[in-house]
Amino acid sequence: MERRKFLKGAALAAGGAAATTALAAPAIAQSKVDLVIVSTWPRDFPGLGISAQRLAARIGELTDGEIAVQYFAAGERVGAFDSFDEVASGNAQAYIAADYYWKGKHPGWAPFTAVPFGLTYTEIDAWIKYAGGQALWDELAGEFGLKNFACGNTGVQMGGWFNKEIESADDLKGLKMRIPGLGGDVMAKLGASPVSLPGGQIYENLVSGAVDATEWVGPYNDYFMKFYEAAKYYYWPGMHEPGSQLAFGMNASWWSGLSKTHQAILEAACNEENARQMAETNANNGVYLTRLIEENGVELREFNDDVYDSFGEAAQEVFEEARDHSELSKKIYDSFAAARSDIGKWMALSDMAYVQKRNRVLDL
Amino acid sequence: MERRKFLKGAALAAGGAAATTALAAPAIAQSKVDLVIVSTWPRDFPGLGISAQRLAARIGELTDGEIAVQYFAAGERVGAFDSFDEVASGNAQAYIAADYYWKGKHPGWAPFTAVPFGLTYTEIDAWIKYAGGQALWDELAGEFGLKNFACGNTGVQMGGWFNKEIESADDLKGLKMRIPGLGGDVMAKLGASPVSLPGGQIYENLVSGAVDATEWVGPYNDYFMKFYEAAKYYYWPGMHEPGSQLAFGMNASWWSGLSKTHQAILEAACNEENARQMAETNANNGVYLTRLIEENGVELREFNDDVYDSFGEAAQEVFEEARDHSELSKKIYDSFAAARSDIGKWMALSDMAYVQKRNRVLDL
Repeated sequence: MERRKFLKGAALAAGGAAATTALAAPAIAQSKVDLVIVSTWPRDFPGLGISAQRLAARIGELTDGEIAVQYFAAGERVGAFDSFDEVASGNAQAYIAADYYWKGKHPGWAPFTAVPFGLTYTEIDAWIKYAGGQALWDELAGEFGLKNFACGNTGVQMGGWFNKEIESADDLKGLKMRIPGLGGDVMAKLGASPVSLPGGQIYENLVSGAVDATEWVGPYNDYFMKFYEAAKYYYWPGMHEPGSQLAFGMNASWWSGLSKTHQAILEAACNEENARQMAETNANNGVYLTRLIEENGVELREFNDDVYDSFGEAAQEVFEEARDHSELSKKIYDSFAAARSDIGKWMALSDMAYVQKRNRVLDL
Repeated sequence: MERRKFLKGAALAAGGAAATTALAAPAIAQSKVDLVIVSTWPRDFPGLGISAQRLAARIGELTDGEIAVQYFAAGERVGAFDSFDEVASGNAQAYIAADYYWKGKHPGWAPFTAVPFGLTYTEIDAWIKYAGGQALWDELAGEFGLKNFACGNTGVQMGGWFNKEIESADDLKGLKMRIPGLGGDVMAKLGASPVSLPGGQIYENLVSGAVDATEWVGPYNDYFMKFYEAAKYYYWPGMHEPGSQLAFGMNASWWSGLSKTHQAILEAACNEENARQMAETNANNGVYLTRLIEENGVELREFNDDVYDSFGEAAQEVFEEARDHSELSKKIYDSFAAARSDIGKWMALSDMAYVQKRNRVLDL
């Protein structure tokens, strides 16, 4: 996923409506708190947009309306990538986003969403909640006047859609592939040409041959993008985003002025949505993976060990470059790497080994 | 884990204190709601007890005390295994337990905690929330006057502690092993003698040789049981409880009389704690696994394919026997098996495959 633009007309129209809504908001009772949320996802966008809207509605439910939420999808109040400044400045109280969008401001943001060869959903949740991640996120966010919580995850991404088989890193050389962020940096080190394209333009570029390959999210989201009409091979597993963590980022001054009860409710709502989105994604990925194979004739391909070795070497360079940025970046990446080692070793003996053995025995 | 008894003296003493607390509770304001929670875990029990107490405290925080919670650990008000009746009868409003404790009342309860060759944490969360699990749980619980939510998970269990190597199912014949529930039924089909022992008695029985082997939970919990002093080999991965789901079970009449806001808060608190306990367990399992190996000289052993094939055959028989109990049991086990197939196939291409490749490349 990442970096898409939205129709200017729609944004302007909705922006107008939003301003009206804001002005027409009723006078606020003593105990009421205004919460304007701006999001990086289009309205009703499968998975991501639905999750953000569910969180916004849930905050109202949990406080019986004491926190009066106004939710603006991408472009309805500000553009997706203006969400950070809108909240840091206090114009809005919170954003819903993938924090790696802000890695240009500080590379420390990236691990709080995903980095190549990083953490899965269960691993990043353990890191953030019980292995030092939240404290480091607080430190980084604090430098920008923000306070952030995890509030959604789309899990391990598929490796992408290709029209030729990838047998070694040599097959990536010269390949024009839509893959943004640090994953794109890894591909560039291997000689590919990473391209950033908004979601709505990928399909046409893939059909026309303007790009040779693309990644997006996983079976559920990719199904609706119809990539199977334009590319033959669907590779697994992706190395670039092994557990895309989404964030609820609040203006820190606003947050610190809330009652303890409202703070607890916002944290609980984020924690709840974090798991809900992952559950929804996993449930749907299973169903849509079967559909893609059986109804759309998609051919699955597994990245072989040679290709993964090359990915790994390039990813390590990208990781080190981001780590070397600053003292805080070093602290974040080192803590992340320690969690990957400790929790990753445990995963190898538990979830990973168990699923492998169970699926083999039951022929799943 | 499963089925342990607690010191009678402690239970009586604490029970007395609890009764006093109940009598001394202040008169309740119009909006206040009383919530007595009985738990199957001893007070301050690592992992499980801590999680239950955190949930109880959180409900108070989230409602600013509007829901007045009194929490009773196992034996403080009723014995652990009387929790179900205490809540179904309306004497208390909620229990915290592993619902497979009630499989004697109906075998449909077991899949809502764990069955051999069942679902991992991420899989069971997807099943319950987005693949039909909650509706079936509601139907089953409704038959007993209960309404249940998922509220904790301890993940994939280790296979157990042994003093001889297990190279084939023949090595299990005649083995006296502490392993309760359906996992014990699987072992019995393979010629072992499963034994049920309360947690506090396992260590002495293992040291004396009264039992040859035992399972418990995972590295974090097992470390404090000091099994490494009495058994040499620590096997992975366990087939018997691949994602032990814990439950918050409420009296259904009490639940239906709550306001929508309080209902939403209880659901959110359970959803939050569900992920918190898993994160805490995974973070600690990584650290304690390293400690067990490096400081206590524990030798890890992997169950080989032959042993897993035997486990699988026996587990399928146990699964079918439970499924054949009744129409409702059939619906529950069939839905569970469908989720295992759909979501399990997706896990094979995503989390499982990714962790295997990442760990190989990074030498974790």
